[in-house]
Amino acid sequence: MTKAFTFKVLATDGKARRGSITMPRGEIRTPAFMPVGTGGTVKTMYMDQVRGVGSDIILGNTYHLMLRPGAERVARLGGLHEFARWPHPILTDSGGFQVMSLSKLRKLTEKGVTFRSHIDGAAYEMSPERSIEIQGLLGADIQMQLDECTALPAMEKEIERAMELSLRWAERCRTAFGDQQGKAMFGIVQGGDIAALRLRSAQALKAMDLKGYAIGGLAVGEPQPVMLEMLDITCPELPADRPRYLMGVGTPDDILKSVARGIDMFDCVMPTRAGRHGLAYTRRGKVNLRNARHADDPRPLDEESDCPAARDYSRAYLHHLVRSQEALGAMLLTWNNLSYYQKLMQDIRAAIEAGAFEARAAEISERWARGDIPGM
Amino acid sequence: MTKAFTFKVLATDGKARRGSITMPRGEIRTPAFMPVGTGGTVKTMYMDQVRGVGSDIILGNTYHLMLRPGAERVARLGGLHEFARWPHPILTDSGGFQVMSLSKLRKLTEKGVTFRSHIDGAAYEMSPERSIEIQGLLGADIQMQLDECTALPAMEKEIERAMELSLRWAERCRTAFGDQQGKAMFGIVQGGDIAALRLRSAQALKAMDLKGYAIGGLAVGEPQPVMLEMLDITCPELPADRPRYLMGVGTPDDILKSVARGIDMFDCVMPTRAGRHGLAYTRRGKVNLRNARHADDPRPLDEESDCPAARDYSRAYLHHLVRSQEALGAMLLTWNNLSYYQKLMQDIRAAIEAGAFEARAAEISERWARGDIPGM
Ligand SMILES: [Zn+2]
Ligand SMILES: [Zn+2]
Repeated sequence: MTKAFTFKVLATDGKARRGSITMPRGEIRTPAFMPVGTGGTVKTMYMDQVRGVGSDIILGNTYHLMLRPGAERVARLGGLHEFARWPHPILTDSGGFQVMSLSKLRKLTEKGVTFRSHIDGAAYEMSPERSIEIQGLLGADIQMQLDECTALPAMEKEIERAMELSLRWAERCRTAFGDQQGKAMFGIVQGGDIAALRLRSAQALKAMDLKGYAIGGLAVGEPQPVMLEMLDITCPELPADRPRYLMGVGTPDDILKSVARGIDMFDCVMPTRAGRHGLAYTRRGKVNLRNARHADDPRPLDEESDCPAARDYSRAYLHHLVRSQEALGAMLLTWNNLSYYQKLMQDIRAAIEAGAFEARAAEISERWARGDIPGM
Repeated sequence: MTKAFTFKVLATDGKARRGSITMPRGEIRTPAFMPVGTGGTVKTMYMDQVRGVGSDIILGNTYHLMLRPGAERVARLGGLHEFARWPHPILTDSGGFQVMSLSKLRKLTEKGVTFRSHIDGAAYEMSPERSIEIQGLLGADIQMQLDECTALPAMEKEIERAMELSLRWAERCRTAFGDQQGKAMFGIVQGGDIAALRLRSAQALKAMDLKGYAIGGLAVGEPQPVMLEMLDITCPELPADRPRYLMGVGTPDDILKSVARGIDMFDCVMPTRAGRHGLAYTRRGKVNLRNARHADDPRPLDEESDCPAARDYSRAYLHHLVRSQEALGAMLLTWNNLSYYQKLMQDIRAAIEAGAFEARAAEISERWARGDIPGM
């Protein structure tokens, strides 16, 4: 296994890229989807299953982990890979996004952010340096700069202030991270829905020569066309030889359209969260297992899937589990959903390799649009 | 595979029996523990895991299943084995116990019991005949007579009335069940904590020549010595060539002491329920994973177990999952607990075969009494 963190574009098809990130803990085939393992567990899943559906990397949430069980504790226990029994690559976010959305009494200054835990009210300080320190204690292979993400819609002045602050924090994170062989620290493009700000952010980050670039502050309330326009503007400004990660995105449709614009990495809670709410992602679109039409349906979610959750259990049984709020319902639907997302990524990668991405994306979208099989 | 329902005692050691029940769907090695699969799922477990820890049979709750998804629906879907993907033997209770403990506006007469669902208030009637019909629709391999179980302490007159009613219902269930090859209907000894009533109940049921006998109405509030005294009185009255099932029992200690008195089958929600509440059963006794002493402990629950949940995950991680109310915590602890219970049964069976049951039971108890490994 390589000692360095490297990224290679293996094939392109239009702006879509088929690539490979390698690092000591393994390879990430891109475009990649990263299941979200918030608190050291991908909810309701065994790590064997997460791996089995084709995940090369998972995401850990710094905010959650620093509060509980605590970064220093995870480090004493051998790091997050060992703690959560996931020996493959891990990306951690900076914690900033969730500090802003979940914590209490937060106060943001140039220095960083102070806040109180939403769990027990304990006080914390998070600077760019501390965020990198925590991510290092967790042992993350890919670490994210601390940034300030602005919810949309927002005033231009406010978006600009946060974007400029994020650039200064990127520089501080870069210094704090230093030169760690085999690991990477990604910068995050901000700038809301303002093209000029996105451009300025991307260019300034490019000048920092980071190992990878994320695009943040999208899918935070704006319509999909706005998000795609921002990708159209941002991606060409980022260096072609570095991976591009669209944070917190998204639906299968978001993913198709973002890959078409040059995005290499994604993470989103949708497949896991939806699985806990009775929703199944399938090649025929989203299926709501709570719906009474499934109550007597002996057919599986998708007879062609190679995921046992999709192939081996009747819709009637899944419906029953969901209605009865049985844990197994969330377990099976989450498994199905992550399997579907990873199958989609596999499909995307193969299509790019074959130079057939656009046609395949159209086919996939068309199949979603036709909808689920009719009831019995 | 045999077409008939048969029971053989393969070895005895004192009053303890090592036996084998065979039926078309498989063999039950006795003494056996039956995990409780209330609503068509052993909570938080994949059926592969239930089987993998050594379960030969699971229990389904008629009351839950008749309300949701409904017995006729389960029948249309191919029966409970197919519905829940458990092709091995299934025992169903009669529904009576949970009607009495969970339903609303219940009214009991000679004919049966009327009640309203605790889920949606819908009205139901359950007679002995309907209970057997429902259990047949579910496809249960071992079915239980409808009985009336009296919570202890209770007045003797009340215990007697319920016991006599249960005998009349046993006769009606016997008739309703008829002569089904490869399946069995068990009668249930009642009589509370009154020796004379237990005797009378056991003798009357013995006269009915049923394929198996359960002892009900114990572990319902009385001290353990009272329960054991009732077993001492009841077991010798039951035919030696029929399996004896102690309903709803119990702790590992209850099981050891009941096997010593001639019990062959057990079911209990303890291992599964405890698993959802942060409690682990181990050879060193019960371990509360919520306890802060585990927070920094990298050691597994039991390094000698062959169950991954017990062997491969740190106590620190389990503690974290339990404290964070992560589904994986309940999944792992339930898996550990069922594994421990089945390992205990395996141990009991081997000891009886070796003629060393008493010594082995003493060793097991002694190890529980010494308690868990000290904290780090
Ligand atoms: Zn998302
Ligand atoms: Zn019990």
